[in-house]
Amino acid sequence: MKDFTKIKNPDFLKKLNNKELQALASDMRSFIIENVSKTGGHLSANLGVVELTIALLKVFDAKKDKILFDVGHQCYPYKILTGRASKFNTLRKMEGISGFQDINESKYDVFEAGHSSTSISTALGMSLARDINKDNYEVISIIGDGSIGNGLAYEALNQIGDLKSKQIIIINDNQMSISENVGAIHNALDNLRSAKGYRNIKEGTKKVLLKTFIGRFIFKILDKIKRTLKRFYLRKGKIFSDFDIEYFGPINGHDFNELVTYFKIAKNENKPVILHVITQKGKGYKPAEEDSIGVYHGLGSFNIETGKVIKSEKPSYSKIMSDSLYEYAKKDKDIIAITPGMCFGSNLYNFKDNLNSQYIDVGIAEEHALLVANGLALSGKKPYVFIYSTFLQRGYDEIIHDIGRMNSNVTLLIDRAGLVPSDGASHQGLLDIAMLSNIPNIVITSPRSANEANNLIYTSLNHNGPFAIRFPKITLDYSAHNKEELEIGKWNTLRKGNDLVIITYGDLVDKALSIADKLSSKLDIMVINALFIIPYDESLLDYLIKLNKPIIVYEEALSSSSLGIMVQNYLYENNFKNKVYIKGIDNMYLTHASRDELLKICKLDENSMINFINKKIK
Amino acid sequence: MKDFTKIKNPDFLKKLNNKELQALASDMRSFIIENVSKTGGHLSANLGVVELTIALLKVFDAKKDKILFDVGHQCYPYKILTGRASKFNTLRKMEGISGFQDINESKYDVFEAGHSSTSISTALGMSLARDINKDNYEVISIIGDGSIGNGLAYEALNQIGDLKSKQIIIINDNQMSISENVGAIHNALDNLRSAKGYRNIKEGTKKVLLKTFIGRFIFKILDKIKRTLKRFYLRKGKIFSDFDIEYFGPINGHDFNELVTYFKIAKNENKPVILHVITQKGKGYKPAEEDSIGVYHGLGSFNIETGKVIKSEKPSYSKIMSDSLYEYAKKDKDIIAITPGMCFGSNLYNFKDNLNSQYIDVGIAEEHALLVANGLALSGKKPYVFIYSTFLQRGYDEIIHDIGRMNSNVTLLIDRAGLVPSDGASHQGLLDIAMLSNIPNIVITSPRSANEANNLIYTSLNHNGPFAIRFPKITLDYSAHNKEELEIGKWNTLRKGNDLVIITYGDLVDKALSIADKLSSKLDIMVINALFIIPYDESLLDYLIKLNKPIIVYEEALSSSSLGIMVQNYLYENNFKNKVYIKGIDNMYLTHASRDELLKICKLDENSMINFINKKIK
Repeated sequence: MKDFTKIKNPDFLKKLNNKELQALASDMRSFIIENVSKTGGHLSANLGVVELTIALLKVFDAKKDKILFDVGHQCYPYKILTGRASKFNTLRKMEGISGFQDINESKYDVFEAGHSSTSISTALGMSLARDINKDNYEVISIIGDGSIGNGLAYEALNQIGDLKSKQIIIINDNQMSISENVGAIHNALDNLRSAKGYRNIKEGTKKVLLKTFIGRFIFKILDKIKRTLKRFYLRKGKIFSDFDIEYFGPINGHDFNELVTYFKIAKNENKPVILHVITQKGKGYKPAEEDSIGVYHGLGSFNIETGKVIKSEKPSYSKIMSDSLYEYAKKDKDIIAITPGMCFGSNLYNFKDNLNSQYIDVGIAEEHALLVANGLALSGKKPYVFIYSTFLQRGYDEIIHDIGRMNSNVTLLIDRAGLVPSDGASHQGLLDIAMLSNIPNIVITSPRSANEANNLIYTSLNHNGPFAIRFPKITLDYSAHNKEELEIGKWNTLRKGNDLVIITYGDLVDKALSIADKLSSKLDIMVINALFIIPYDESLLDYLIKLNKPIIVYEEALSSSSLGIMVQNYLYENNFKNKVYIKGIDNMYLTHASRDELLKICKLDENSMINFINKKIK
Repeated sequence: MKDFTKIKNPDFLKKLNNKELQALASDMRSFIIENVSKTGGHLSANLGVVELTIALLKVFDAKKDKILFDVGHQCYPYKILTGRASKFNTLRKMEGISGFQDINESKYDVFEAGHSSTSISTALGMSLARDINKDNYEVISIIGDGSIGNGLAYEALNQIGDLKSKQIIIINDNQMSISENVGAIHNALDNLRSAKGYRNIKEGTKKVLLKTFIGRFIFKILDKIKRTLKRFYLRKGKIFSDFDIEYFGPINGHDFNELVTYFKIAKNENKPVILHVITQKGKGYKPAEEDSIGVYHGLGSFNIETGKVIKSEKPSYSKIMSDSLYEYAKKDKDIIAITPGMCFGSNLYNFKDNLNSQYIDVGIAEEHALLVANGLALSGKKPYVFIYSTFLQRGYDEIIHDIGRMNSNVTLLIDRAGLVPSDGASHQGLLDIAMLSNIPNIVITSPRSANEANNLIYTSLNHNGPFAIRFPKITLDYSAHNKEELEIGKWNTLRKGNDLVIITYGDLVDKALSIADKLSSKLDIMVINALFIIPYDESLLDYLIKLNKPIIVYEEALSSSSLGIMVQNYLYENNFKNKVYIKGIDNMYLTHASRDELLKICKLDENSMINFINKKIK
């Protein structure tokens, strides 16, 4: 096997012939499988783009040309070929390499993503800058068939044909996004895909092709197919020709001949080009190839031989929330579960398979998801939107302008809220409280346990107005359904104490109790479970004002937009004398690391908290 | 002329013949022109949809069917026909009727918009609820040709064909959105529009048509045209047939025969239908018909005879900002002005006409606008995005995930920040500070004058990282270009005083100075111009802590996410003893009213402030 750690840059690819490229691809797959089996990470998408990336770096000049991986979790082959193989044992680990492109990691990374469908718009900005400067480089986006269905990609496609600024868009079509695709774009790609063997060869590109033997050969065949399929193409290729963008496809994404030929054609075009490349997700690793639901999309470590993923014995919070709602939904036909393309991540297979009429997957389209929910709520239904905290950012206006303003009965089940391991800055769930807290009448909650979460879902069922339940990316114990209706805005005092008050919520509650125990010989600490962030418990705060003891608000949210800020403000307005300390997260883009490491970085781990208390509280 | 104030509901339309409908339309136009000439409001769009709305309410049952006006400023004929004509003298005024649909105003309003492209997704939620309940009503969206180019509309179109839940989408195509349209969708509509006389009549709808004489007549003609134009249609109608939605068009939007016929056809379809209706913006009022730039889109009062708009003699803040940047852009070719479809509103004609290579209009696509800016910035350009505060909400994730994270040199010129007159809840600019304040390294500013604004633009030119300048919807005096580079984060003490400190910024600075003068016999008030909201002036705050006098932070932003909150927090962390009062805006959706009335509602006018100070400060 090739020693990938010796690769400094992709220049060596220029000299390799197809056979050597194939050997390289095979070795690279083994390298990726071996590494990801230990570190965890995104497997299937990277195995799918091995040849695509090799061919890309053979034809284009990554030092000069700008290469943008949409979402970006499919950039492992790119990282290997741009000199980062030796760091693959640190993938997604603290101080290691990122699982996405990262402009601070390498000069070859000109862009950062994480969220979907940002590449084409950004590439347009880059290509316009190039045109204005009369510079000479290519701008290339690699975007999946799921991401191209997002409205943002559409806004970009809608404009680039008009502006005629050259960029190359490679649609990496593996017939499945993170979960599976929905919608017209998907169907159109499906149709195009079936038009096997046909490509659109324009007059202007003939010349290039005809220069080489293989080019002449391909041209001859293609031209014949073209004539017979022309009418078919006119119908089938229309979805992109509408956008006045040159379309070539489908291209076999595992065939170097095809890839190199079409990359060269695209290079020689002088208007925007789409290359529709068909790849197989998980290619070269059987368990991933046969994976239809997304197990190998992003995963922890696994056994290469068996494909068995090494998993926690406890269920994920996502599964608990999905199962909880499912139990209610079986009896209440007004409950509708909605996901923006995250059936697997949000563990919604129960809904999909067994309650399909109460399940809507809108694809990667968060804004649309929230408005469909709003329309359902305005019509008397009880929509529950399963959404990752970080992706909720895409729907900020729909929360403010639609759901909040019409005071709709939409419940947001906000997954991966707080500190999120491994994925880094783009996936932290730190802004949901900031986003939601300016909406009048909203209820924002953060349960400390699976049972409390279940009770909050139960409470939300009959609540009038928007309701949010935020929960972190952890696994946890789960016992039974209590079906207890909780009093909105009421906090629980879990531990009494007279020296110091810790107000906290969510996964930090247990840590606060442990801290209180550990310090019990010195300090008598009260611990309050603030499961309702909004509305907060004013009468309990009034009591704390009278008690006049120092308060720490200990939370997994940005300090600048937090419960702590609300507590400070409430105390300000009510003539308090207490000291109030906010122990939250500073305004910064957090790196990739484990959850425990992130807690330490943010000084929210038990030891840091104990040190803080020892220093501040006399 | 018909007495519109007697209309209680649209039932009377059922009995009217075409001639009567035409007379009604003509009267309604006069009514709208006369009222809007006094109250101000949206003129052109409403004149364009008079026949469309009459025909809609003749064919459908507004008591039962759900009618959603996208954006919603074209709902005046709808309001007249649903019993609200007598209130038209209160249009957009405090306690008067809203300029948009408003669910609290009438049972006929089932939805609220203001921002664009929300109707189809919301309608999908409503139609799915209907299908689940086995109810029987139509869901109808009326959406402009500009709004259909937005990504949100696309996400909805992408899905509705798949789900096959019946809804009717009326594309109101007046060949011009608020400014003008860009992009492929626009071009496609252009092509469709030119296919005059052709409509797609499906077998299933024949029956309905054939029942009436006029139907048989239309069918006969259309069927003939269909056969000859079929091939043409296949190419031209493709943009919607891609979405697996039935398409009928173009339909003459001022011809009752055509409108009623196609509304009936659409009613009888059992899958999603698009009706492509061609209307003339401003129809029936010559100055509006001939208006190519958008003067009559939304305006104040005007003289009906001359068409002359009664305007302030002072320039708008939008114009000042545009002109300021234009002066710099003439010399600095790296400056690029970007607008999401608001050339007129943001007064960018200088850029468009005279510096076109430094001007990009992306259409109604805020997310895309911000990413194009990010791509330009990553390539060394200096993009300036002119964007209304309320529409910035659409780009929240692009600010956080892209511009903020890559620390790009994108400057946001945030127009209509703070309290916005007449348009009501959907157009208030109260969240920009909340949205931006969680981004590390950002500079957020709010100038007190046109000259200060110009200096801030000058300062931003060489600043590294995101920069925001927020300014309200007012007119103001403007003198000369100072080109003074301001020290980032430094506040100005405009008035010294020992009893009370008012920290304020933007348009409230002059009010604060006036308040200080008025109270000068009793209190010695210090007034600080906090033109930098982030970073704030820590050394000045340290001085105020030492001074230990009460502080009022007086601002046009939500109190819960404001400079006041930041000041409180800084003081908390620095052992202060001062009283701090935040005089900002409560979390609520504000009504339509004038700016002065809104200041009073929020108790931010001079009298309310003086009362507050008299009560609180002894």
